[in-house]
Amino acid sequence: MTHYIDSGKRFLLDDPTLVPNSAGYLWNKKMMIHVNCQGYAVAQYMNPEPKKYAHNPNMAATSFMQPEQPYFAHHPGRFFYLRDDESGEMFSAPFAPMKKELDSYQFLPGLNDIKWHIKHLGIEMEMTLTLSADFVAELWKVKVVNRDSKTRKISLVPYFPVGYMSWMNMAAHYDETLNSIVCTSITPYQKLEDYEKNKHLKDITYFACDVRPTHFETSIPRFEGQGGLHNPTALQQGSSLSDQANYYEMPACIMQFALDLQSEEEQEFNFVFGPALNKAEISHTLEQTLGANKNQTIARYKSYIESGKGVLQVSTPDKIFDQFVNNWLPRQVFYHGDTHRLTTDPQTRNYLQDGMGMAYVNSQETKQVILTSLSQQKRDGEMPDGILLTPEAELKYINQIPHTDHSVWLTLILEAYLNETNDWALLDEPVPWEDSDEKSSVLEHMNLAMEYMCHARDERGLPYIAQGDWCDPMNMVGYKGKGVSGWLTQALSFALQSWIRQSCGVNHSEKIDQFQKTVDELAVIADEYLWQGDWYARGITDDGVTFGVPQDKEGRIFLNTQSWAFLANMPNEQQTARMLKAVDEQLDTPYGVMLCAPAFTAMREDVGRVTQKWPGSGENGSVYNHAAAFYAASMYNIMQSDRAFKTLRKMLADPENESFAQRGQLPVYIPNYYRGAYYQFPETAGRSSNLFNTGTGAWYYRLVIEELFGLKGCQQGLVIAPQLPSDWKHAHVLRQFRGATFDVEYQTVSSDSEAGIFVDGNRLSSNVIENIAAGKTYEVIVRIFHR
Amino acid sequence: MTHYIDSGKRFLLDDPTLVPNSAGYLWNKKMMIHVNCQGYAVAQYMNPEPKKYAHNPNMAATSFMQPEQPYFAHHPGRFFYLRDDESGEMFSAPFAPMKKELDSYQFLPGLNDIKWHIKHLGIEMEMTLTLSADFVAELWKVKVVNRDSKTRKISLVPYFPVGYMSWMNMAAHYDETLNSIVCTSITPYQKLEDYEKNKHLKDITYFACDVRPTHFETSIPRFEGQGGLHNPTALQQGSSLSDQANYYEMPACIMQFALDLQSEEEQEFNFVFGPALNKAEISHTLEQTLGANKNQTIARYKSYIESGKGVLQVSTPDKIFDQFVNNWLPRQVFYHGDTHRLTTDPQTRNYLQDGMGMAYVNSQETKQVILTSLSQQKRDGEMPDGILLTPEAELKYINQIPHTDHSVWLTLILEAYLNETNDWALLDEPVPWEDSDEKSSVLEHMNLAMEYMCHARDERGLPYIAQGDWCDPMNMVGYKGKGVSGWLTQALSFALQSWIRQSCGVNHSEKIDQFQKTVDELAVIADEYLWQGDWYARGITDDGVTFGVPQDKEGRIFLNTQSWAFLANMPNEQQTARMLKAVDEQLDTPYGVMLCAPAFTAMREDVGRVTQKWPGSGENGSVYNHAAAFYAASMYNIMQSDRAFKTLRKMLADPENESFAQRGQLPVYIPNYYRGAYYQFPETAGRSSNLFNTGTGAWYYRLVIEELFGLKGCQQGLVIAPQLPSDWKHAHVLRQFRGATFDVEYQTVSSDSEAGIFVDGNRLSSNVIENIAAGKTYEVIVRIFHR
Repeated sequence: MTHYIDSGKRFLLDDPTLVPNSAGYLWNKKMMIHVNCQGYAVAQYMNPEPKKYAHNPNMAATSFMQPEQPYFAHHPGRFFYLRDDESGEMFSAPFAPMKKELDSYQFLPGLNDIKWHIKHLGIEMEMTLTLSADFVAELWKVKVVNRDSKTRKISLVPYFPVGYMSWMNMAAHYDETLNSIVCTSITPYQKLEDYEKNKHLKDITYFACDVRPTHFETSIPRFEGQGGLHNPTALQQGSSLSDQANYYEMPACIMQFALDLQSEEEQEFNFVFGPALNKAEISHTLEQTLGANKNQTIARYKSYIESGKGVLQVSTPDKIFDQFVNNWLPRQVFYHGDTHRLTTDPQTRNYLQDGMGMAYVNSQETKQVILTSLSQQKRDGEMPDGILLTPEAELKYINQIPHTDHSVWLTLILEAYLNETNDWALLDEPVPWEDSDEKSSVLEHMNLAMEYMCHARDERGLPYIAQGDWCDPMNMVGYKGKGVSGWLTQALSFALQSWIRQSCGVNHSEKIDQFQKTVDELAVIADEYLWQGDWYARGITDDGVTFGVPQDKEGRIFLNTQSWAFLANMPNEQQTARMLKAVDEQLDTPYGVMLCAPAFTAMREDVGRVTQKWPGSGENGSVYNHAAAFYAASMYNIMQSDRAFKTLRKMLADPENESFAQRGQLPVYIPNYYRGAYYQFPETAGRSSNLFNTGTGAWYYRLVIEELFGLKGCQQGLVIAPQLPSDWKHAHVLRQFRGATFDVEYQTVSSDSEAGIFVDGNRLSSNVIENIAAGKTYEVIVRIFHR
Repeated sequence: MTHYIDSGKRFLLDDPTLVPNSAGYLWNKKMMIHVNCQGYAVAQYMNPEPKKYAHNPNMAATSFMQPEQPYFAHHPGRFFYLRDDESGEMFSAPFAPMKKELDSYQFLPGLNDIKWHIKHLGIEMEMTLTLSADFVAELWKVKVVNRDSKTRKISLVPYFPVGYMSWMNMAAHYDETLNSIVCTSITPYQKLEDYEKNKHLKDITYFACDVRPTHFETSIPRFEGQGGLHNPTALQQGSSLSDQANYYEMPACIMQFALDLQSEEEQEFNFVFGPALNKAEISHTLEQTLGANKNQTIARYKSYIESGKGVLQVSTPDKIFDQFVNNWLPRQVFYHGDTHRLTTDPQTRNYLQDGMGMAYVNSQETKQVILTSLSQQKRDGEMPDGILLTPEAELKYINQIPHTDHSVWLTLILEAYLNETNDWALLDEPVPWEDSDEKSSVLEHMNLAMEYMCHARDERGLPYIAQGDWCDPMNMVGYKGKGVSGWLTQALSFALQSWIRQSCGVNHSEKIDQFQKTVDELAVIADEYLWQGDWYARGITDDGVTFGVPQDKEGRIFLNTQSWAFLANMPNEQQTARMLKAVDEQLDTPYGVMLCAPAFTAMREDVGRVTQKWPGSGENGSVYNHAAAFYAASMYNIMQSDRAFKTLRKMLADPENESFAQRGQLPVYIPNYYRGAYYQFPETAGRSSNLFNTGTGAWYYRLVIEELFGLKGCQQGLVIAPQLPSDWKHAHVLRQFRGATFDVEYQTVSSDSEAGIFVDGNRLSSNVIENIAAGKTYEVIVRIFHR
């Protein structure tokens, strides 16, 4: 049922019910669109905050992107009705809203476009959506071909509902000069000061075509009438659209093209749909997107997306893995680093990790992220909960809740950047502070960030959790100022070890000693206060209750306090074995490892979850892929390469797994979660959130490059230390690194004596390729002996 | 096409497209439901702020009730599918979502229930919705009768979608003990303090029946499948519902009753739908609504609604007017005064006027409104923008914008209360202040309120407008502290005249003199600064620009500065004639008088509208009925009784007017506006907002009682001073007043000498019936001679 093509993905819709939620997404720096195979779409753009140009039919609340977002009859869509003007027969493409079974149907999300091929009633349609690198606009191309043996009279009717733009003022009309439907509105306000802000918003939505329509319509209620979306009154009984403007009804962009096509004759239409401040802006955009520069504009978007292709091309025995890592993974990483998930105040943690991914795509961006973040650090070393990217931006949502872990991520991103670029000069760069005009070096910023975290600990040496730390559904563990975090105990150690590695050559030796002393202390403390039964507890509440322990009925074991213990090198061999057994037995599932188990089914007042998220969804016992990525990292850290790869591989929703394949959910991205609570709600476990905003991509890419294929940078050059799955006999990788190309062939050999690393035919004495010459291609052979 | 029945209203749906928006509404103190004839509904309840228990399929923004609210395929509805289980044929009742043409259809909104009678496929259905006086719950009764000559196997499937309850946590299951579908959710929160608040919210929605269902379903996506609302997958091909719980999908309450009905056999079902805190609350509610007490509960709601029947029963040559004034008008007044439009922070202006209407329904409530309002007055006399009704309430939306007119309304409500009750002791009642522990008499509160307004004037004596006054789309006229209001110049005078009338017997004579001096001053000032051309200007901006003047292209003439000039007795005879001509020519339309003309089509930066509302809608050049009511009042003030009645009558959407009748919009309430901009957008002028929240009702009722029929209270008793339309030959009224009943017969006579007022057969020497005895019925004959 499901087939792959090169860099795109194809769904053959034998049965329309099988893949209702399959979706692709496109973006540029200013906008993002998530389009599903039926024709529904979620699009957002920055103006300056996230805003919509195609709305719901009621006032929608402004919120972050939602997981498991439902589509519904009147959800914004991009629909094309096709009517046989002689018989009156009709269908809608790509599928919704009429949802007629079509003679053939293909959905092909690609890297820089999303396509459908459809055939029905003897008419073939090819629809392509792409964006531009420069404009906030959807570019649609629709080709209609008469595959019938006789001449056909048909109407093509694109229906782009614009919806409830504003209760204050909305309307739509046809502009002859622009050959566009122009929907106008005014963003509602009541306070004087909002009027001044709103003036600059793109309150227009328009829809333009390079062919003049036979008729048009501007009103949703007039178009649909009582017939409804599945049978619009305006298209019944051979009627034509009204050619009327609309005053304060829900606007829509609807054009009717009456065509008279001979057998095998085709006609092409190009449409532009998007927001604008005024008609001058529309006119300018259309010149570039429908006019003579159209092809350059489309080519520019293609090369923009190609600029994010990353540093790795792989060929392994696992073709699905190759396909994902070569195409979709760097694309997801690029989307995150390029757009900051379309926010003006990304969470510090997200912003840093999205920036980290860019180290392998465009490392200048990573540097910028580090400098921007540090410039918002307080003079006492504290990092803020969110990073403000524009002068008007404000901390919103979760960024108003105090979290204690932000500086952990600083060291991790910096290490990735230094590994990849060797740009040690960065540590000397002077950077201002949020609350001081003085500038200090990056080194000093980092030292203070680490020291701030070291000080924020209780009398036992355990780090305070306040209202939350990372990846946790809890905000009431430590709000009274006493509760502590088990995870942060380990994460602080891991961050300090990373910072010691990075800075030992340039930092004051007293500082290094001090940090090392804390690392040693934390290991002892973790064993004393957190080790219970066969694993590490998650924390201790304000009231002194240790949780995430064997006697807990819910939230008994947390993945992160095991993964990060491994990353911080805390457990001994015996502990490791017991922890792995506990994770395998209690957290692992066919869909990946769960964040905690059993999922909470109700609030535990002495623990306190920030959310009472549905058990198995969100962060409550789900297969939270971001946490799973750290579990994979921790498995590489203890040389459990098969466990690590299995974890990574499950994120790609194994096509051998029937329940995934049935949903067509072989991802063009890794979703932020698959539903968990596997033992509590087995019926729904494994469902995808269908949400692609997640820190998972960056870590996945880093792990594949640095751990799986073992091609990590260091001061001397490139370290070769692969940890391939034991059943891979061979693999081949092209790795771009510091301007050079490494063509790496991995081979398994049958004895230790055959093992070794060969560069351009010469055996290396260490596992580091030194003195790398930019521009050069290195032929590398890595012979591996699996004991 | 449209017929009336006694206290209900009947729509015969010959053609379903004719009355798509006809709607009725029901309420109790804690909830309100607005149900349209197709089965769509908007319901809100207080918990403690307005909240929904049936949601949209996406996250809806919290807002005030919207005018011209669109219904759409997935709008919350109360739908009943009826399937012939032998043939598979199906329709939905009352009409949506399948929208099949039915054999017969009646929609009957009544005072305390809303009914449908439907017949199709040989099956008759009678559906009744009512509420209870005590619970927040919808009570549905559905009777199904087999009108076929043979036995029929059918399925009745109520489909009550509950929608996107929460992104955090939602689910649904069937509870056997309660025989209910119980949909659970958790209101999302991120901040700790919100958790404590949310704990007390009724986050459950349930649906119970007194008959055990054959099958049930709890999930919207599982029910609809790809078939959609108009053809749900779960009901195709004789299938049964799944009997499954739902985990984190959009919940719905769906039951299937498989029936086997012999010819003429009927079966009745009672359903309860509403929100609850927990299952104990559901259980308690069901005992009272489905159990043995069911009939008492329904009867109690009926008598609750009847308690709002008001003080007037009329019989005139205009039967439609009678029907509205006797039934629907006091009901609309009662709804406003009883629920405060379901807010916790009503605008001061709205709260006072809604309270004023209650003087003619339940005057104790009016007294409470006066005392509550004055207790939130500042010691310096200033009234707040909104009145807080609960300890947790906060000023929201428009109540955060400073307006300068609130005390005007204080005197108007107080005068109505004193007219009706003669309760002069109220003036001595001690009331606290918002910012002082001291208590002062109502008299002193009122004096200070008036003096505060008298002081808030510029060097010319014109009142400041700040960011707004009443019924105006403007908030930038005086935000810099200089702009002044033409309307408030007149309204202040009107308010002072009212206060002088009320308090002259008890107030210090110096105060009375001072107030009278200001009244005299204001008349001179208005003529000097505001009279331009043939009418009074609307105001003068911060920058000294007078607007609402003949040379303005938009907003040239405002209704309120003419109406209130008449109310304040400002224009002389010559001015009056010119003003009336201007109103007739520029503001009057077949749908009523417009608020201003021509409507603004764009922001005028030197005037500044608070909203850039669509021209003709909202407050921008619409037929804003609240303002029109004041125009009617002002016409009574200058004895233009025909103009006054014509204005009132147009609010009832004249059935002789084809464009209203076509839309079936003979109101069961007066909407807050009909669309205006009659000369600019004639296509849409006259459309109803379909929103029943408006101060119009209270004034309409007061005008009908005190001015049209001229039955106004005074200290001595009841003044008789009718101003009937000149073409009424007779009228008859029953008026309840101070415990007595007045049976008043109006007759027109052909000469002045025959005119006079007769009470129990005796001619009155004045026009005041004095020494009223409670419990007595007075037979009054009023003989009127029209010159």
